[in-house]
Amino acid sequence: MDAARAWSRRENLALLTDLYELTMVAGYVREGRQDKRVCFEYFFRTMPSGAGFVIVAGLESFLSYLENLQFTDDDITYLRSLGLFQDDFFDYLRTFRPACTVRAMREGTPAFPSEPIVQVEGGLFECQLVETALLNLMNYETLIATKASRIAYAAENDPVMEFGLRRAQGPDGGVSGARAAYIGGCSATSNALAGKLYGIPVAGTHAHSWVMSFESELEAFRAFANLYPKSPTLLVDTYDTLESGVPNAITVFEEMRNQGKEVRPAIRLDSGDLARLSKEAHRMMAEAGFDDPLIVASNELEEDLIADLKRQGARVNAWGVGTHLITARDTPSLSGVYKLVSVRESGEWVPRMKTTSNIGKATDPCRKQAVRYVDAEGHPLGDVLYDFVERPAESGDIIGYNRTQLRAHTRIRDAHDAHHLLETVVEDGRRVSEPQPVEAIRSHAQAAKAAFREEYRRLRNPEIYKVMLSERVGGVKGDLLANPEQW
Amino acid sequence: MDAARAWSRRENLALLTDLYELTMVAGYVREGRQDKRVCFEYFFRTMPSGAGFVIVAGLESFLSYLENLQFTDDDITYLRSLGLFQDDFFDYLRTFRPACTVRAMREGTPAFPSEPIVQVEGGLFECQLVETALLNLMNYETLIATKASRIAYAAENDPVMEFGLRRAQGPDGGVSGARAAYIGGCSATSNALAGKLYGIPVAGTHAHSWVMSFESELEAFRAFANLYPKSPTLLVDTYDTLESGVPNAITVFEEMRNQGKEVRPAIRLDSGDLARLSKEAHRMMAEAGFDDPLIVASNELEEDLIADLKRQGARVNAWGVGTHLITARDTPSLSGVYKLVSVRESGEWVPRMKTTSNIGKATDPCRKQAVRYVDAEGHPLGDVLYDFVERPAESGDIIGYNRTQLRAHTRIRDAHDAHHLLETVVEDGRRVSEPQPVEAIRSHAQAAKAAFREEYRRLRNPEIYKVMLSERVGGVKGDLLANPEQW
Repeated sequence: MDAARAWSRRENLALLTDLYELTMVAGYVREGRQDKRVCFEYFFRTMPSGAGFVIVAGLESFLSYLENLQFTDDDITYLRSLGLFQDDFFDYLRTFRPACTVRAMREGTPAFPSEPIVQVEGGLFECQLVETALLNLMNYETLIATKASRIAYAAENDPVMEFGLRRAQGPDGGVSGARAAYIGGCSATSNALAGKLYGIPVAGTHAHSWVMSFESELEAFRAFANLYPKSPTLLVDTYDTLESGVPNAITVFEEMRNQGKEVRPAIRLDSGDLARLSKEAHRMMAEAGFDDPLIVASNELEEDLIADLKRQGARVNAWGVGTHLITARDTPSLSGVYKLVSVRESGEWVPRMKTTSNIGKATDPCRKQAVRYVDAEGHPLGDVLYDFVERPAESGDIIGYNRTQLRAHTRIRDAHDAHHLLETVVEDGRRVSEPQPVEAIRSHAQAAKAAFREEYRRLRNPEIYKVMLSERVGGVKGDLLANPEQW
Repeated sequence: MDAARAWSRRENLALLTDLYELTMVAGYVREGRQDKRVCFEYFFRTMPSGAGFVIVAGLESFLSYLENLQFTDDDITYLRSLGLFQDDFFDYLRTFRPACTVRAMREGTPAFPSEPIVQVEGGLFECQLVETALLNLMNYETLIATKASRIAYAAENDPVMEFGLRRAQGPDGGVSGARAAYIGGCSATSNALAGKLYGIPVAGTHAHSWVMSFESELEAFRAFANLYPKSPTLLVDTYDTLESGVPNAITVFEEMRNQGKEVRPAIRLDSGDLARLSKEAHRMMAEAGFDDPLIVASNELEEDLIADLKRQGARVNAWGVGTHLITARDTPSLSGVYKLVSVRESGEWVPRMKTTSNIGKATDPCRKQAVRYVDAEGHPLGDVLYDFVERPAESGDIIGYNRTQLRAHTRIRDAHDAHHLLETVVEDGRRVSEPQPVEAIRSHAQAAKAAFREEYRRLRNPEIYKVMLSERVGGVKGDLLANPEQW
C-alpha cells in the first residue's frame, strides 16, 4: 500500500504514462538516440459535436506535471519488476530531469482542428515520454472548457453553475473539470475544493434530503432561510412543486419581508417541465409581490435543452448544469493527438509527417507557429500555420494552401493585424511564463470568443473557420506526400 | 499555490464536495441535529446503455476517502472566507472524524437498478457530508467496470487491453478507470501507474513515432525486435499496412527465426478495415510459416464493433480498447444517487422516502438488505430487498412486490439458496473488512457474472432481472405513497 499512499499524495506522476512510451524511450537510450533533437506538436483532428472552435485548457496542469517530472526509486523498482528493461535505462531514469522547450497557446484561446496547441521541442527521450500525460491533461480540460462555452452561449447572459462533481471521473475529473468549465464560461461551481484551489466562485443551495430531514417542507424552508438569509435558494420539488414547494417558499419569503429583511426570493427547480413550472412559479411569486425572483433550473441540462427552454420563454434566470457538462455527453472525448513534426539532422530541422492508408489523417510537417489574422475591428479572419523559419506577413492579403487540397490556393483578404498564438512557456526546462490566475484566463477566453463573428459562435452548423498552411508548409507537405520514402 | 500543492499531494479530500452539502451540515450543527441517526443508500436508477447489470466498483476509493476525512486549518480558513458560515460550524469541523457504519456490496458484484450498493448509517452530519465524494467515486468506477465487462464479453475469450489513459478525465480518471476496467474483465492496462499501484498487468507495443524516428520502417522493426525479443509486437500501419508494414514485420520475424530465436510473431493494426487487414495479414504470415500470429487490433473500438468484427471472421486475437472504454462513450455517466431511507426517532427506525411529481422516481424506504436467490446450480433467480428488521427466507418460493406496481405480487420459484449482498465494511468509523487485492475482486466478478444465465449477460436486449421488494418494504412504500404527509 506504500505505492498507493505515494500516489494519493501525488508525489510525482512520472509513471502516468502508457507503457509503450517507456518501451520506446528505453529503446532510444539503448541506441544512444535519447538526445536527438526533435519537435512534437499537440493538436486535435475533429471538433466536438457542434462546436465552431474549442477553448484551450489544461496547459497549467501539464506544466505542473513537467516541473515535477522525475522517477523515484520506487518507480524504478516497479519498472525493474516488469523484466522488460535493462540497467542502462534505469541509470538514465535516475538522473533524468526534463530540459525541453514548450511553446503553447494561452489557455482560453479559441483553437481549430490541426492547429498546434502545444509544441514540445527537446531530446527524443523527454519529448516522447511526456506524450500520454500531455494528452490526458489537455484533452480533458479542453473538452470541458469547450462544452462549458457552448452551454454559456445557450444561456445567453444568465449565469451557469457547474454542478458535475458527482458524475465526474474521480476527484480530479471533478476538480480540473470545474476549472475548465469556469474558463469556458461558467460563473461558479458547486465544487468546494475547486473553489479553494483556484478561487472559483462557489454556489449551491440544498438537497431534497434537507427537506426530508424535517417534519415538514415549510419548516425545512424556514430553517434554511434563517440560516442563510442573504441567499436562501429553496429547492421546491421534493414533494410537489406547484402545490407545495412554491407556496411554502412564498410563505417563507413573505415572513422574511414582514420581518423587514431584504430578500430576493430564489427557488430551484430540479424536475418536471421546466418551462411550464418556471412560468407558473414566476407568476405565483409575482402575485405575492416578488417581481424579480431568481429561478434556478437544473436536471440533465445541456446547451440544446437550454436553448430550447429559452425559445419557450421559460422564466429561468440561472442554470445549474452537471452531468452532461462534466462528461461532455455528446462527444465525451477530444480527439487530441501528439505527433512528431520535425527532426534535427546535421544542424538542420528536417520536417516529418505521418500518414497511413487514410491520407486524410496525414499530419502537417514542420515546427509551426499559428498566426491569427484579424480585420480592422479585431474580428478574426483566418489562421495560417507557418514554419518557424518563415517570417509571416503582418497584414494585407495572405495567400496559403488548403490543408487537404494542397493544390487549392486560398486567401485571407485585407488582414489588418496578426497575432502569433504560440508563446514560449518553458525554455530548456525552465518555466519562463507566470502562471495565470483562472480569472484572467476566463477573461481572455471571453474576449477572444467575443472577437469572433456570430457565425463562428452559434450552436449549430457554425461557419467553418479558415485554417491554411503557409506556402512553405504546404509545399513541404506536398513534397512529402509525393515522395513517401521521405516521410 | 500552497493549497494547490496540498491538493496535488492529496493530503485530504474533505472539500471534495458540493458546497450545498456543507450548507446543509452547517444547518444541522446550528440546529443541534448533527448527531441525529439516519441511514442513506447509494443506488442507481437506470442501466447504462444495453447493460443487463452493472459491476460494482469504487468502494475501496470511497473507504480510503472516509479513512482520511478531516478538515485542515487550511480548509477551515477557506470556508470562513466564503462569509456563509458561523463559528459553531468551524468548531465542529475542527474535531470532526467520521464514526459511521458502512455496509456495501463487494466490489465486482453484479448489481441492478434500485438495489442498495452502499449504505451509510450514522449521524446526519457525516452521512450528508460524504454524499458527493461517494457518488463521484462509485459512479465512475462502476460505470467503467460495467463497460469493460461488456467489451470483454464481446471479445469472447480474447484478451482486452485498456488503452484509455490519454482520453481519460485527468490522472485519476485514468488510474481509477484502469482499475475498474481490470475488475470488469480487461486483462491488462497500458497505464504504468495503475500497474504499479494495483499490480494490474501492463501491456503495450510502440507508437507510430518510433517508426518515424528511424530512417526506414524495416530498421525500426528490427531495432524493436532486438530490444524486446520476448514480445515484439510491431505496429504495421505507419505507412501502408499490407504493402509495407506486414511484409517488413515478416522479414524481421524471419530474421529472428533464422537466428534460432523462439518467436511468436505479433503485429498491431491501428487503422483501416480491421476485418480485411487482419485476414490478409494472417494469410501473409501463415504463408511465411507463422501459423499462430498474435494480431492485436485497436482504433476506436467498443463492444458492438468487436462483436461485429467477430461475426465477420476477423483474425484478431487481442484487442486494445481506449477512448470509448474510459469514457463509456454511449452512456458517459452512471445515474447513481444517494438518498435518505430511514431516520431514527425515539429509538425506532422510521422509513423515509423521496418522491417528486414523477412518481416513478419515488425511492424505496427502509434500511435494506439485498438478498440474491439462486437455484440448485447457483444461477441467480432474482433479488429481494428486505428491511433489516425482517428475516429473509432462505429457500423455496419467495413472494414479493413489484417496485413500481405495488399491487402486483410477484415471486421467485424454488430458490435453493440465498446470498446476502451487503456486508459491513466499516463499523462506527472503524474499518472491519480487509482491502481486497484487485486480482481477487476481478475473480469474484468473473465468477459472479458466470453464474448468471446467458440471457442476462448478452450484449443487446438482455433479459430484465427480477428485483422485488419484500412484503414489508413494499407495504411501507405503499403506505407512504398513500399518505404523502408521512414522506
